[in-house]
Amino acid sequence: MSVRKPTLAVVGATGAVGTVMLSILSERADIWGEIRLLASKRSAGKKLKVRGEDVVVQELTAEAFHGVDVAMFDVPDEISAQWAPIAAAAGAVAVDNSGAFRMDPDVPLIVPEVNPDAARNRPRGIIANPNCTTLTMMDGMGALHAKFTLTELVVASYQAASGAGQAGVDRLYDELAVVGGRRDLGVRAGDVRAALVDKLGDAPSPFPAPLALNVVPWAGSLKDDGWASEELKVRNESRKILGIPDLKVSATCVRVPVITTHSLAVHATFASPVTVAQAHEVLSAAPNVVVIDDPATLQFPTPADSVGADPTFVGRVRQALDFPNTLDLFVCGDNLRKGAALNTAHIAEMIAAELTA
Amino acid sequence: MSVRKPTLAVVGATGAVGTVMLSILSERADIWGEIRLLASKRSAGKKLKVRGEDVVVQELTAEAFHGVDVAMFDVPDEISAQWAPIAAAAGAVAVDNSGAFRMDPDVPLIVPEVNPDAARNRPRGIIANPNCTTLTMMDGMGALHAKFTLTELVVASYQAASGAGQAGVDRLYDELAVVGGRRDLGVRAGDVRAALVDKLGDAPSPFPAPLALNVVPWAGSLKDDGWASEELKVRNESRKILGIPDLKVSATCVRVPVITTHSLAVHATFASPVTVAQAHEVLSAAPNVVVIDDPATLQFPTPADSVGADPTFVGRVRQALDFPNTLDLFVCGDNLRKGAALNTAHIAEMIAAELTA
Repeated sequence: MSVRKPTLAVVGATGAVGTVMLSILSERADIWGEIRLLASKRSAGKKLKVRGEDVVVQELTAEAFHGVDVAMFDVPDEISAQWAPIAAAAGAVAVDNSGAFRMDPDVPLIVPEVNPDAARNRPRGIIANPNCTTLTMMDGMGALHAKFTLTELVVASYQAASGAGQAGVDRLYDELAVVGGRRDLGVRAGDVRAALVDKLGDAPSPFPAPLALNVVPWAGSLKDDGWASEELKVRNESRKILGIPDLKVSATCVRVPVITTHSLAVHATFASPVTVAQAHEVLSAAPNVVVIDDPATLQFPTPADSVGADPTFVGRVRQALDFPNTLDLFVCGDNLRKGAALNTAHIAEMIAAELTA
Repeated sequence: MSVRKPTLAVVGATGAVGTVMLSILSERADIWGEIRLLASKRSAGKKLKVRGEDVVVQELTAEAFHGVDVAMFDVPDEISAQWAPIAAAAGAVAVDNSGAFRMDPDVPLIVPEVNPDAARNRPRGIIANPNCTTLTMMDGMGALHAKFTLTELVVASYQAASGAGQAGVDRLYDELAVVGGRRDLGVRAGDVRAALVDKLGDAPSPFPAPLALNVVPWAGSLKDDGWASEELKVRNESRKILGIPDLKVSATCVRVPVITTHSLAVHATFASPVTVAQAHEVLSAAPNVVVIDDPATLQFPTPADSVGADPTFVGRVRQALDFPNTLDLFVCGDNLRKGAALNTAHIAEMIAAELTA
């Protein structure tokens, strides 16, 4: 039996996530027929390598979605808000990695290993890909929830520079080039700040404070009552993905001087008792989760050892001493792969399988 | 009225904390008569500057405590365990910054702004100074507890390299010299590790993984059930200092590439309702606490802007959305000053005031 392979459009192929996306599309099985690259007029005409071949970037227009089965969007919220409905109207399933549609009740928010069935109900023809910080823990938390019923999450993040895009990566490298080799910095208030101004001038940074030799307790934009948007995404998206509308969540989001891979310290409370051994068993069996957890030999996940890999890594699993039915643990996940491009690719492949079934 | 000024001995004056201690002793009012410096035989005979004058380091012997009123110890646990009782037997009050005596029921564990009265009951003649991670939040938590009655703490730390002593500082500088200027690292699993081995060989590190371009979810030694000693110190010392034996505490301790100043993301639950405005009011009035908290103008504490200062800094105060009577907040404190030498100096000065009263 010969089935026409579906056509994929990638909107925003030239950004930090888009670049990883093209690499993932090139690595994976031959799922797609045509892969069409769409971008702003400014980038149209550029050639990018996909599956070993040059593909010319086309301008993003309504007509460009003609014949497209699945359209991935790795663009800012306002571009997605405008163009994903246009792609859907043209007959494509839009898979959107922006924040524009995640909390829309008519748009499913999907982690294929956790809530794949929810993707079938998509009245707007749009499926949303979760925020990268939330995604770091969803595979692990989804597996534990299925067995022990999650009721509360207290999360502190250690977020990488690339969560702020290529500008974040460039800025951290620039800052590290300034502080590297200096043994006089990080010892007086403001000395790092002064050294960066001295060498980098007023070059713009996506971070509201120095990131080299520092951590910055802020990610996203200001929302009500002092919350950062990233912290509310962790709460609201976890509730929607896990299907627990009354899940109690508090998150504090902090940027750290790591290029790529977000980490989370998670304090998770369940309705049922759970031991470390039971958690290890459930997590080890979960798709896309790798357990690295042997404190006796100092084995635990770190971002520098997790970056570039597909799975999320869980370690430091401990039974809370004073909180019933509660685990404390540490999770690492590549925020450009599982946290963005890889999860989007998985969703798109689910749709491709559905279309060709 | 002329009163003899008390004699102070500083044991371990040549370490990372000891160096800061001599600087603090030199900055502060003329509280002490003689300041005697004691160290191992190896360091005896060295000259160190205190209050602008050269002081010759003497060998640590029982006789060296003759005439000493207060003896500070900034040495490893086993040295303190051996020598603090000898100092006490010689008539000195020993103020110990190691972990040797902190949980001894006959040794008070003191933060002068929080539980000064407990210092008067010291049957062994020893007073313990808390762990630096615990100290980061004690001034703030003590003030909030006095008003709202603390019941639960969930803590994630962002701990500086100098928490592991001068070897930690040296190692992080060495690692940053290797990664600074390289724009190819932090993007593939193990690339930072390989670059460090390439340039630094098998030079020993106090950290169980690379710290540059990384975070490391481990601090201290392995205790029962996968807990790190640092995490249990946060729990047990918070309970003892605040006088809440049944305080519920979970901590995850993580080292970050910062030279000095620990930060904590704290999720704190109280018996009474508490608003952000009330918390700001209480924290602003608390001794040794500075509130930096205006998210609209991106004002919050960071370690690079807090290092070298005496107070602890609190910001990002939010009322938890789903947990009653609960605040989420972020605290920074210099782990060598308030987290170690400064708190020890404050305790010693309390005793000096008591002796000369």
